[in-house]
This record gives sequence, structure tokens and C-alpha cells, in this order.
Amino acid sequence: MIYQVQIKVMPLKDLLDPQGKAVLGGLHNLGMNGVSDVRVGKHITLQIEAGSETDAKAIAEEASKKLLANAVMEYFEIEVIQ
Amino acid sequence: MIYQVQIKVMPLKDLLDPQGKAVLGGLHNLGMNGVSDVRVGKHITLQIEAGSETDAKAIAEEASKKLLANAVMEYFEIEVIQ
Repeated sequence: MIYQVQIKVMPLKDLLDPQGKAVLGGLHNLGMNGVSDVRVGKHITLQIEAGSETDAKAIAEEASKKLLANAVMEYFEIEVIQ
Repeated sequence: MIYQVQIKVMPLKDLLDPQGKAVLGGLHNLGMNGVSDVRVGKHITLQIEAGSETDAKAIAEEASKKLLANAVMEYFEIEVIQ
């Protein structure tokens, strides 16, 4: 069966996020002063052929660890949709 | 009140996604052949001070349209968490 999987890769909470800071500056320049604490990460969707949802999640986790996320700077969350 | 908002910005479905193609190639090189149709977008989290959830969503939508997403190539989805 083919599962639709979403992986969110975000900068670790303790690290500075220069891209987020830049976006925040841009939003303030546009007059949106109610916005704070912007962080920018990656959102990856993929289709995984696997025997079960658990298998699909395991494959997504392997992909995240080996290629998609850099554990030194980022954490990831996996969601299997169907 | 401060709302935690997540914005997902993804390449439009009809467009090629070179970054997704590169990731797919990388995963296949790692032996993960069950993976297909990879697309890579941005995941942005921000805190928005607003009077209501509807207001927070409106601010997030304005931010997405003006700065975060390029409507020619990307679509966005907003989720207000709390």
C-alpha cells in the first residue's frame, strides 16, 4: 500500500534561526508588529510504499535521519496521513 | 492573546519541484526504492498576538500573501494551534 507521509524539519529550539529572524524583520517592515518568534524549516511530503503504517513511518524516519534532517541543527516530526 | 501559528508553503502541484527530485534521487541512492513523489516546501512557525483565532489567521494569511509564499509557484496552508 502507498502511504502519504509528511515530514517537518525545523531548526532546534535552542539554536538561532537567521532565516526566521529575516522573515520577522520583513514582517515588521510590512507593519505586522503582532508577529514574533518566527522559525523557518522544511516541509517534505513523500509517498512511501510499505506493508503497514508502522513500516512507512520507519522508512520515513530512516530517510529523515540519513538525508533530510541534520541532527546537529534540526529535529523532525513525521506524520503518516493515509 | 498570543496564538501559535503554523504555515506550510509548498510548490504548486502542477509545477516541477527540482529540490524534491534531488531528494528523491538521494533516497534511491540510499536504497530506499519504495519512496516516490517527493516535494519539498517550507514550514514556518510564528507567534501572533491577536484578539481572536480568526484575527490571528487573517494576519497569517496576509503575511503569507505578502512575504512568505510566491503565489505564482507556491500555495500555503495555515493552521492556528492555540
